[in-house]
Amino acid sequence: MNQSGHIFRITTFGESHGPAIGVVIDGCPPQLKLDLDRIQFDLNRRRPGQNALSTPRQERDQLEVLSGLFEGKTTGMPLTMIIKQEDVKSQHYDTTKDLFRPGHADKTYQARYGIRDYRGGGRASARETAARVMAASVARQYLQQRYGIEVLGWVESVGKIKAHIDSRSITLADVESNAIRCPNQEIAKQMEDLILSVKKEGDSIGGVIGCVAKNVPEGLGSPVFDKLEADLAKACLSLPASKGFEIGSGFEGTLMKGSAHNDQWFEDENGDLQYQSNHAGGTLGGISTGQDIEITVAFKPVSSHFKLQKTINMRGEIQEFQNQGRHDPCVLSRAVVLVESAMLLTIMDHVLRKDALGILNP
Amino acid sequence: MNQSGHIFRITTFGESHGPAIGVVIDGCPPQLKLDLDRIQFDLNRRRPGQNALSTPRQERDQLEVLSGLFEGKTTGMPLTMIIKQEDVKSQHYDTTKDLFRPGHADKTYQARYGIRDYRGGGRASARETAARVMAASVARQYLQQRYGIEVLGWVESVGKIKAHIDSRSITLADVESNAIRCPNQEIAKQMEDLILSVKKEGDSIGGVIGCVAKNVPEGLGSPVFDKLEADLAKACLSLPASKGFEIGSGFEGTLMKGSAHNDQWFEDENGDLQYQSNHAGGTLGGISTGQDIEITVAFKPVSSHFKLQKTINMRGEIQEFQNQGRHDPCVLSRAVVLVESAMLLTIMDHVLRKDALGILNP
Amino acid sequence: MNQSGHIFRITTFGESHGPAIGVVIDGCPPQLKLDLDRIQFDLNRRRPGQNALSTPRQERDQLEVLSGLFEGKTTGMPLTMIIKQEDVKSQHYDTTKDLFRPGHADKTYQARYGIRDYRGGGRASARETAARVMAASVARQYLQQRYGIEVLGWVESVGKIKAHIDSRSITLADVESNAIRCPNQEIAKQMEDLILSVKKEGDSIGGVIGCVAKNVPEGLGSPVFDKLEADLAKACLSLPASKGFEIGSGFEGTLMKGSAHNDQWFEDENGDLQYQSNHAGGTLGGISTGQDIEITVAFKPVSSHFKLQKTINMRGEIQEFQNQGRHDPCVLSRAVVLVESAMLLTIMDHVLRKDALGILNP
Amino acid sequence: MNQSGHIFRITTFGESHGPAIGVVIDGCPPQLKLDLDRIQFDLNRRRPGQNALSTPRQERDQLEVLSGLFEGKTTGMPLTMIIKQEDVKSQHYDTTKDLFRPGHADKTYQARYGIRDYRGGGRASARETAARVMAASVARQYLQQRYGIEVLGWVESVGKIKAHIDSRSITLADVESNAIRCPNQEIAKQMEDLILSVKKEGDSIGGVIGCVAKNVPEGLGSPVFDKLEADLAKACLSLPASKGFEIGSGFEGTLMKGSAHNDQWFEDENGDLQYQSNHAGGTLGGISTGQDIEITVAFKPVSSHFKLQKTINMRGEIQEFQNQGRHDPCVLSRAVVLVESAMLLTIMDHVLRKDALGILNP
Repeated sequence: MNQSGHIFRITTFGESHGPAIGVVIDGCPPQLKLDLDRIQFDLNRRRPGQNALSTPRQERDQLEVLSGLFEGKTTGMPLTMIIKQEDVKSQHYDTTKDLFRPGHADKTYQARYGIRDYRGGGRASARETAARVMAASVARQYLQQRYGIEVLGWVESVGKIKAHIDSRSITLADVESNAIRCPNQEIAKQMEDLILSVKKEGDSIGGVIGCVAKNVPEGLGSPVFDKLEADLAKACLSLPASKGFEIGSGFEGTLMKGSAHNDQWFEDENGDLQYQSNHAGGTLGGISTGQDIEITVAFKPVSSHFKLQKTINMRGEIQEFQNQGRHDPCVLSRAVVLVESAMLLTIMDHVLRKDALGILNP
Repeated sequence: MNQSGHIFRITTFGESHGPAIGVVIDGCPPQLKLDLDRIQFDLNRRRPGQNALSTPRQERDQLEVLSGLFEGKTTGMPLTMIIKQEDVKSQHYDTTKDLFRPGHADKTYQARYGIRDYRGGGRASARETAARVMAASVARQYLQQRYGIEVLGWVESVGKIKAHIDSRSITLADVESNAIRCPNQEIAKQMEDLILSVKKEGDSIGGVIGCVAKNVPEGLGSPVFDKLEADLAKACLSLPASKGFEIGSGFEGTLMKGSAHNDQWFEDENGDLQYQSNHAGGTLGGISTGQDIEITVAFKPVSSHFKLQKTINMRGEIQEFQNQGRHDPCVLSRAVVLVESAMLLTIMDHVLRKDALGILNP
Repeated sequence: MNQSGHIFRITTFGESHGPAIGVVIDGCPPQLKLDLDRIQFDLNRRRPGQNALSTPRQERDQLEVLSGLFEGKTTGMPLTMIIKQEDVKSQHYDTTKDLFRPGHADKTYQARYGIRDYRGGGRASARETAARVMAASVARQYLQQRYGIEVLGWVESVGKIKAHIDSRSITLADVESNAIRCPNQEIAKQMEDLILSVKKEGDSIGGVIGCVAKNVPEGLGSPVFDKLEADLAKACLSLPASKGFEIGSGFEGTLMKGSAHNDQWFEDENGDLQYQSNHAGGTLGGISTGQDIEITVAFKPVSSHFKLQKTINMRGEIQEFQNQGRHDPCVLSRAVVLVESAMLLTIMDHVLRKDALGILNP
Repeated sequence: MNQSGHIFRITTFGESHGPAIGVVIDGCPPQLKLDLDRIQFDLNRRRPGQNALSTPRQERDQLEVLSGLFEGKTTGMPLTMIIKQEDVKSQHYDTTKDLFRPGHADKTYQARYGIRDYRGGGRASARETAARVMAASVARQYLQQRYGIEVLGWVESVGKIKAHIDSRSITLADVESNAIRCPNQEIAKQMEDLILSVKKEGDSIGGVIGCVAKNVPEGLGSPVFDKLEADLAKACLSLPASKGFEIGSGFEGTLMKGSAHNDQWFEDENGDLQYQSNHAGGTLGGISTGQDIEITVAFKPVSSHFKLQKTINMRGEIQEFQNQGRHDPCVLSRAVVLVESAMLLTIMDHVLRKDALGILNP
């Protein structure tokens, strides 16, 4: 399905080279004063062509609202937002009409549907993520206004260059202070150098995004299947090119003993009760603890590089293939807002689900 | 919600010390000849008390079918299976009535619902997973009969001891050949020694489960949100104590370049077309490629160890706490069938979703 | 699906002659003090064998709770309730193994699933409705405690004998004061005479149930598809043997002019604002107005009568068929609690859906 | 929710005076050759201003496709269709900004959301139904191509003038042969006279729509909650101004005895097995029998007439109100395609749900 969320339910639509990419939010809380500039800002963070590290395509990605907004406020009715297509050069993709690009969803879409819009990857294009960013930016404003929740992502690693960011001390300004969106300026420079070097080779490179949600109230999430970490994992693995997910201690946590891993309590100098650590990453049993929610997401190297590759065509023959056109050597800087979006949409839905609890005499 | 699946939809119910744990499968294909012994076999693999490595509790976990089966076949009606409770010693848990155990969901459930069945962890107990195992064992039989799909998990690591299993060459018999369920006998012995040593300390340890699905047809999965890997990630992160998920190259893949990561094609000696590698782990763009689906899942060390801990009680005071009763020092051997279940339920739902495609003149 | 409700989601299971009929409520509000006797009372109202008007089968329909209840209160976890089967005489139904009874779902289930549990109608038996009654009786207690909502049904007509009940003045005691559950004693006597006369003929008869919900707060229901009246219509038409549904003025309303139909306002002697009429039946645009919700539901005559009928068998041959066993000549008195259940479950879900609205600074 | 359908899931959006009304179909079968002219034809049947019987507004309702269509065929990706707004005269509605119109959803939306787009009824405007018509017209083409299913509605009555149409013998041309869309020309003339007379009074009138689906295969529908008739009832009661629903014998059927009501079988002169009657209206136990599906839907008189009315305003005061602007005295002729749409969308979803059955070796 092209839908996500139980109460804050979003439906996205649109193909890479079709007339528009968009999203309908069904279940948007009413009376939310919406800052369209913030949505445009988040769209711009995702957009290609922001700098030398990303593709030179100039998609303006101009937000338009089709429904659900009245005198600057949401009405509780479906909120529809679209961006129209511009700067489309389909000819670059004509070579891909009859073959299946390695690492792309060409062959799998053909297998599932027996038809595919091959222009620019069609529905499988990462351009689809613009729709999620718009919806998530609405969620961001709601969560900020209601709880002061802040969701912030950053580039944790590119290839073997790793930043070890302490999420408690960084701000949006830190993240946005360089092109790669890594708040450690020195490491950021190394990452950029690596990306430019990989670009020169005509190759591509992956990395890891870190993301934190602060001020999340205790008690979000559901038992058993819709655990908060489960829905976060799903949202993150639904992002293009993602291959792994961790919450809290993640894979490193498997090396610890239970006595070290459990987050115990202490009374701080002010007499406030505090957790001694946050190996849990902000959830226990699928429900938020009130600590920061901390996740990481692995992204594989971009499938569209410029080296010669062997693949098969529509007739089932081996064929050589070399990419043309414009492609990012590394999507990490643009993926930051995508991981934030996955986090925002997940938390948003669970905030409303908790409201639906119906406790008598609360 | 306590539900999962869009078409093969399961609803689980039951608390650790309540009358029964069970599952209703709504959307089970009709006319499936059901082998109840195989379901009992899978239940037994999950059951505690199998050997010295796990807790000595003797839960018989005897399968009972309440509906949906007629003359040995499914009818398409809701298939309900339960296990009744036995060997319940609630007194061990009375100490947990008024305090929140570190690493457990006690405090978070209280925060969300304002009430909790504290006996044995109530709904948050891992005993709930028996319900998923029953449902997954039905899916296993369907997938095996229809496509020959085989899903097999194993213990890949315990603490720092790692097995590096080649999933292409292992069998269920290999996995079941030792208590820890690691098909490398030498490493298995090291894992068992580690667990016994940790047990002696009164501590606990985590690890990683690997799992593979073979003979999965090309074309399973949905675009955008319900990508096969996204639903797999959700199912795995909904398992108790899981902290991380990978498909294919996972976090390691972020260290590769795109030219090495893409799975290219070649023609083998028989003239058959083959992928040169499987870094994708069996999906592209959320849809299965026909290659093996390969995942790993990280499990934190068990939260119930026997060291003294500091936590808070229902009155918000710091309190010391030491576990009583029977607890696994390591759940990995029992988690194998849980990861298999997550994989089976996910694939099952997507198999039926593909059937709902409605292609004209297929 | 065997599920209903978006937030208060129920899943029912069980066949007429299987081990148990049951329901799981996923999304039951926590901390609800549950009166099991009231649930048993509602089960008894549905049960056959209450008097000479209904079938002499003695199903004890004894409520058992399997999960979700702790120290007399709901926990927010799945609430599972079952009734086990007793007094089953399958031999009466052996004749139906190879033929399709007219007016029953035998042939259609066979067409859809290629298999059917033919014993007593299997899943299509009206015995399934016991599961809804249990769930609805939980909803009834919640709605009563939280809003003082009262839902009350009655028999409005049997065949051509019609009661014209004024729903504003009747009570549960009025409804329960006679066997047919029509609060007009004189008409009730005529209805009972009609049913006994039809029973003597070996035939069956239908009728209409009226049902009202009082004290429903304004603002329940959703725009467009999940209008309150739409969900009510669905719930009522999902009851066995139902053929029609009306809200407010219903089909009669098509004979009125708009100036007479619109419910205008006036100020009563106390200065309170009141509606002059309730042709709308308690909703406008799918959302409750705060007036009583008034519906009627048509039930066809029972399909199982004792006259000789022509039907076809599994080999596609015309065959004569005459019912054996025990069958109600009229189900209306037992259907009262079913229509109440449809109303209760629908309102319950919409109450919780309204809670999920997420209005800022309410 | 603004969504409907389990597999062929549609999401509609847009307000009466907003930039666009639209629909996203998620779950549209791929490879369907789409005739956009037929969709436009159905849109035109719903459009106001077709003749003297309906409002003189000139909404062009020009179809635009935003996604999901490639080289004239559906791709299985979300199919998005919109109509942009034209000829909007908001000033007529400024008087309704501060008061609640009788018979409209003004007050109930305000109660539920605390905000409403009051221009032209906002989201509650019947203009929303254009979105359903577009989606249903896609379903129509699929059902026609795959099964030859034909869905056809007509005006059965206006006020007390009733047509008694035999659905087996009418065609689309018959229905479209006059302005009121009643295939009995003589009765149609009487209906038109009645409507014009009511219009002259400044009043409005309701009526009943009949609708039939032919060539529906046996075996569509689900047990228990999602019975075919239940989903039909919901779809019809979700239409603006609808107050009642019947399938087959409906309320009249309650006057029959079971021996007359059951649809028995016979062998016709060609040796084919036939039903003797269709009191069931095409379903038994919620699943289609293969007979025609026959329903009727009651529509109340239009709430917007020109007589003086008493209502209340936003400050809770009694206020007189008289409609301005352009309003249909009778919506029946335009409602024909709406009831067809309800039927088409319901059958479409159940066709795909049956495909998802997963029967082994079918």
